[in-house]
Amino acid sequence: MSSNGTNGTYQKLTKQIRSYQTLGACAALLSWDEHTLMPSKGAEFRSEQLAMLAGMVHERSTSTEIGDMLSELSSSDITESATSPEAVNVREVTREYNKSKKLSVEFVEELTLATSKGQHAWMEAREKKDFSIFQPYLEKVIALKIKQAETYGYEKDRYDALIDDYEPGATFESIGKVFAAFREELTPFLKSIQDSGNQPKSEIIERNYPVAAQESFGSAAAKTIGFDFEAGRLDVTTHPFCSGIGPGDTRITTRYNPKHFPDAFFGILHAAGHGIYEQGLQTSQFGLPMGQAVSLGIHESQSRMWENLVGRSKPFWNRFYADAQKSFPEALKDVQLDDFYWAVNDVRPSFIRVEADEVTYNLHIILRFEMERAIINEEIAVADIPEAWNEKFTKFFGITPPDDTLGCIQDVHWSAGLMGYFPTYALGNLYAAQFFAKALIDMPNMYDNFEKGQFGDLKKWLNENIHVHGQRYPAEKLVEVVTGKPLSHIEEMKYLRKKYNPLYGI
Amino acid sequence: MSSNGTNGTYQKLTKQIRSYQTLGACAALLSWDEHTLMPSKGAEFRSEQLAMLAGMVHERSTSTEIGDMLSELSSSDITESATSPEAVNVREVTREYNKSKKLSVEFVEELTLATSKGQHAWMEAREKKDFSIFQPYLEKVIALKIKQAETYGYEKDRYDALIDDYEPGATFESIGKVFAAFREELTPFLKSIQDSGNQPKSEIIERNYPVAAQESFGSAAAKTIGFDFEAGRLDVTTHPFCSGIGPGDTRITTRYNPKHFPDAFFGILHAAGHGIYEQGLQTSQFGLPMGQAVSLGIHESQSRMWENLVGRSKPFWNRFYADAQKSFPEALKDVQLDDFYWAVNDVRPSFIRVEADEVTYNLHIILRFEMERAIINEEIAVADIPEAWNEKFTKFFGITPPDDTLGCIQDVHWSAGLMGYFPTYALGNLYAAQFFAKALIDMPNMYDNFEKGQFGDLKKWLNENIHVHGQRYPAEKLVEVVTGKPLSHIEEMKYLRKKYNPLYGI
Repeated sequence: MSSNGTNGTYQKLTKQIRSYQTLGACAALLSWDEHTLMPSKGAEFRSEQLAMLAGMVHERSTSTEIGDMLSELSSSDITESATSPEAVNVREVTREYNKSKKLSVEFVEELTLATSKGQHAWMEAREKKDFSIFQPYLEKVIALKIKQAETYGYEKDRYDALIDDYEPGATFESIGKVFAAFREELTPFLKSIQDSGNQPKSEIIERNYPVAAQESFGSAAAKTIGFDFEAGRLDVTTHPFCSGIGPGDTRITTRYNPKHFPDAFFGILHAAGHGIYEQGLQTSQFGLPMGQAVSLGIHESQSRMWENLVGRSKPFWNRFYADAQKSFPEALKDVQLDDFYWAVNDVRPSFIRVEADEVTYNLHIILRFEMERAIINEEIAVADIPEAWNEKFTKFFGITPPDDTLGCIQDVHWSAGLMGYFPTYALGNLYAAQFFAKALIDMPNMYDNFEKGQFGDLKKWLNENIHVHGQRYPAEKLVEVVTGKPLSHIEEMKYLRKKYNPLYGI
Repeated sequence: MSSNGTNGTYQKLTKQIRSYQTLGACAALLSWDEHTLMPSKGAEFRSEQLAMLAGMVHERSTSTEIGDMLSELSSSDITESATSPEAVNVREVTREYNKSKKLSVEFVEELTLATSKGQHAWMEAREKKDFSIFQPYLEKVIALKIKQAETYGYEKDRYDALIDDYEPGATFESIGKVFAAFREELTPFLKSIQDSGNQPKSEIIERNYPVAAQESFGSAAAKTIGFDFEAGRLDVTTHPFCSGIGPGDTRITTRYNPKHFPDAFFGILHAAGHGIYEQGLQTSQFGLPMGQAVSLGIHESQSRMWENLVGRSKPFWNRFYADAQKSFPEALKDVQLDDFYWAVNDVRPSFIRVEADEVTYNLHIILRFEMERAIINEEIAVADIPEAWNEKFTKFFGITPPDDTLGCIQDVHWSAGLMGYFPTYALGNLYAAQFFAKALIDMPNMYDNFEKGQFGDLKKWLNENIHVHGQRYPAEKLVEVVTGKPLSHIEEMKYLRKKYNPLYGI
């Protein structure tokens, strides 16, 4: 095949990919609407629309024609230089193609049905605080996820096949090694915080925070850190998310609790972090791997960085606290900045992951990571999950969930078949700390700039070092390219100690 | 072909139609979003998405396979009984299919491009109050619309071919006859109103009407007359519209003017009227002619009925005026019901169609109807439109537009290629009056029920007499089936005289 012919094939391939991804972007908008605005009676028809679009995208993305073009290009000189946009796009689309091809339409439909039923059963089980309602549905989902893992295939651990859907290239072993070392330092560190006689005045953040003021204060902060509202929106949902609909359109959501300040505010910064990543992707590469996020772990590193390393930092509040006092005069007029700062950085063991502070949060994840591996390897039967969860929880946190809604049925993920997804949350924390440490070396004035309300340097640094690469490097390689070191817990622990030691007098 | 085979073909046909209509419904949601919420930088990609979906729908709806199935069914016994759902669906899809097939993809693309450019030029011309900017673009659009009419073919008048896109079966002659008789009575009637010494206190409706109060008052009224908010939404747009996205999801929009009460309020009732029609269609026939509106004229009859015959009636305000005073205390606390009622029924010649009262509105339409016919038949050159418009306007209204933004470039329609659309607005008024008169015969207590805030009888009557039929009958037949008489201006004039004679002491 001549180089000209190869080039023509590449153009044709990318055109076809953009075409089915454009269809996927229609589904993204429909799905966003479903979760934010759709009238309730529209639900049934919306499911029909989404199923139809998903089917069309699956059919088009697994066509023999695409497969033939990928084969031709994989052995051509267009993919010679491993990190060229062409090579990256062919490599990553091939990877996705091969995985998708392994799953039969029947299997995909069966899994869709099982997870749909699973989520309804999960909701009912939560309402009635009764795991046994959920158990048979979860058994079905787990059985299918095991089947999926076996269909994908794996080298060492069955769980690896599932992790790969969210964090390509990562394995139980590679993640487990990092998490083990992390936990070894994290556990005594948490203990020293708990043993400290110094504790924050946490009631400060439980006062009256009117929703309208939260919304304008939160939006203003999201705009200041760099979320582009001309290319995005902020709306309200029960379960917050970020959706990159397409070029120029990235939507984030949050939920407001008028008696608890952090939920919405840090939720907005978190979502804005995801959004800034989406907005930083190359629009000319829309729909192609070079214009897509690397992995969920890297995506989470962006949200966690803006939420915690920026948004929960002292320099951030040196800039924003006066505004906060103006926005929430009733709650904050008599509160000192230092007390507020500590209250939004209150560390203590608790049952619910999504409400956890940035120290204990990681333990919640490590627990799930270990549980998932054992479940997928059939070392823990579904029926025994509650007992196993509570035992491990007590070991990790020193407290025992009084019921399963505060334990093993607090999260939607397993009911939805998202096994292997959890570890990406803690990976996000580690990636974030490691990236941020490097950014601080590259830009020593960064914190001073935060105090002046200037966040553009960090955003630009992320754009240039992470976003622009799309999927050029797998996550584990990207962190090395950017920071010069493989992923570890070192920078995260450094960050945590530097921040919390003075607060708690450790 | 056995009856069983025919049945199988019918099932297959309707499944394919539902499928491309479901895709069309995705486009409807994307388009709704584009006009209400989409961030500005998302515009380019959204156009790409919509063009793609439109192309897919066109391709699927004009496939040879669909054509073959339609042929088979048209000559089968499934279409024997002319008003059976099967016969109606086959007849109307065949009609649409034959029209769509006549237009080449190239022509559709050329027209899309010309109207897109046309609309931008129209906006610029309006801003600069300069018709000449718009003229060359309008010439292009008109040339293409003439070509389209010639491609469709017609029996008597070239304009007929275009009218048929919006009001199937209607012609310049059939509409013209009705409009001519209407205008003959309308013109002296308007003169007697103008000559009356009695005039309303129109400043009442130009006081301060806070937007938030308008929104809740308007929503409450829409809900009370029967718009189902569990199967719909109300949002804000510059150019209000109603979009039936699909089963269980009908969305209406409005715009608020804090210094003019009628704009949003009657706009909401108008849009809700369209919405109640969409919500009244048979969901089991979604995507098929039996589950679709008959024509734009009939659609407009629903919106106009709720807006004017219900919403601008005395019984309506007997029910709602106390609420209005509570919602707008500053504007209305000292205003008597009778004065308010008259102020929202102020009749006087004005330049702008969308701001016209329900008497003069019809003259705005008849003017456009006559202009359009002359333009499409090349009796008026595009360059001469402003002069011809002003001359006719002066003849109709006794006042002359001081510039073209108050004259021939006030409406978007021509720039968008919507020639033949205007007459459906006045047809809507006539249909509405004729339907409403029949409803009053069937339910003599209807006005009494309005005073009690009960609108369910009328909604049910419309559901059963109009909505449920979908496209079973063409509009001109439907009005005969429902009212026993062909369309005429008689009931509309009766209604206008009965309402306005006492107000103006005629």
